[in-house]
Amino acid sequence: MKLKASEFIVKPGREVSLKKTKTGVKPLYKTDADGDELLKEIQKDIAEHQQRLYAQSTWAVLIVLQGMDTAGKDGLIKHVLKDVDPQGCSVTSFKKPSGEELKHDFLWRTHTPMAVRGEIKVFNRSYYEDVIVPYVMPEILDSSRLPEKIRTSKNLLKDRCEDIVSHERYLANQGILVIKIFLHLSKKEQKNRLLARFDDASKNWKVEEADITARGLWDKYQKAYEFCLSKTSHKAAPWYIIPADDKPTARLIASKIITEKMAELNLDFPKLKSAEIKHLKSLRKRLKD
Amino acid sequence: MKLKASEFIVKPGREVSLKKTKTGVKPLYKTDADGDELLKEIQKDIAEHQQRLYAQSTWAVLIVLQGMDTAGKDGLIKHVLKDVDPQGCSVTSFKKPSGEELKHDFLWRTHTPMAVRGEIKVFNRSYYEDVIVPYVMPEILDSSRLPEKIRTSKNLLKDRCEDIVSHERYLANQGILVIKIFLHLSKKEQKNRLLARFDDASKNWKVEEADITARGLWDKYQKAYEFCLSKTSHKAAPWYIIPADDKPTARLIASKIITEKMAELNLDFPKLKSAEIKHLKSLRKRLKD
Repeated sequence: MKLKASEFIVKPGREVSLKKTKTGVKPLYKTDADGDELLKEIQKDIAEHQQRLYAQSTWAVLIVLQGMDTAGKDGLIKHVLKDVDPQGCSVTSFKKPSGEELKHDFLWRTHTPMAVRGEIKVFNRSYYEDVIVPYVMPEILDSSRLPEKIRTSKNLLKDRCEDIVSHERYLANQGILVIKIFLHLSKKEQKNRLLARFDDASKNWKVEEADITARGLWDKYQKAYEFCLSKTSHKAAPWYIIPADDKPTARLIASKIITEKMAELNLDFPKLKSAEIKHLKSLRKRLKD
Repeated sequence: MKLKASEFIVKPGREVSLKKTKTGVKPLYKTDADGDELLKEIQKDIAEHQQRLYAQSTWAVLIVLQGMDTAGKDGLIKHVLKDVDPQGCSVTSFKKPSGEELKHDFLWRTHTPMAVRGEIKVFNRSYYEDVIVPYVMPEILDSSRLPEKIRTSKNLLKDRCEDIVSHERYLANQGILVIKIFLHLSKKEQKNRLLARFDDASKNWKVEEADITARGLWDKYQKAYEFCLSKTSHKAAPWYIIPADDKPTARLIASKIITEKMAELNLDFPKLKSAEIKHLKSLRKRLKD
């Protein structure tokens, strides 16, 4: 699978047009079996990287996943991180903020679950919702707890984007590798997936009224994402836009990006110093009894 | 008491020299009784501001207190915030980071206790310790959990300062007023206070070996503070350097700064809309039964 993460990167400063960005590419596999085989290889690859990450416990990885409903976020997490030791990997989903959360600054609820050294953390949706949602539905800010002066500022969302960029730069300075993935789905494919949800008894529990409402605001959401992707792709944490109309292909691309970025950390098992090896030997001797 | 907060501000970009900055000024009161009276007035003032802050619950206040040992941080909190409703005010002290805390980015432990809308939060020491302490004792970083590449970076502390500035700018954008106070004590006065601690049975439990060690590194600490104060005084959250050799004067100045900054928020009790007043009237009627 010849593929480079850089093919999907949003270069810092680039104005993103989602209409001009593909939601589908030629599948990366020939047969389903072939696709499964490729994914398995990559699952193992990520799991191996994670073992080293955990052993070293200096770096951490934060995967930020965004996309419209049914874009394939849940499935991506499930399939891509399948082989990773759950002890070194966890997922936090962000829904509508609670009353307690609204009493705080918008990043607040994302701090406690932040990636710990040695861990892969996935944010299934993230602080980017605090730009996307008020971009689409500005009236939502009226019920926020923000001071009027700030709530009515024209720069509110631009400021949020700048603050997010600074925050991610800080995370990078702290040794947290931030990988941001936007699953880019076509409106047509979303319809197929929503219909499938309605008709499948193992999936219909997932249907929410909000999905249909959000679909009705499709164009506004696309604009909101364009705004976000354009304003917040930066060197320390660029965005990757992945064509999401074919699920297995999207998963393969995401996996490739994750392994490529983790490989750049040069992760390895900690090398013991001679004094430590000596100590280890003496400990080993005590095992005999 | 004619006094302006701006007299003590570190203008953004100014290179701070602590030697050239006074640790003592002419006392702001004539007799002790006079000083007590002035403080009482101000205590009431802050308490009133806090009531409005709480009723409105949109803004929040974060007071960051820094200073050498015995500079008067604890006493300042106790006296200045004496009349504030404890329900709307809380203090978090930051000591040596725990093992769990070291697994995270250095701001992590300061997020959970962050000021809630309507609240005054005091940080008794703060994330600035993560610049001050490694500035004085760089070897402390060896036992940190940072990746080697980051740990050995020459820009580590400069980066931390920039990240703190961005973080504070973000807090301001979120409606959190950040007031940063450095209590500037002379080495001579610290000796008096430490000696008093040793000799007073109600205070000697406070003496820690670290106090004496830190005093031995006095000049390095002063340099560290100069670095911090120079690099992190910015428009959204400037530093105030308060002469701390006379405790009552320091408390009066700090109070003055806090009330002045809170007054700028134009805090007031929420004004009910006519519909709300109507609803209130109907509720009042139901009280009759």
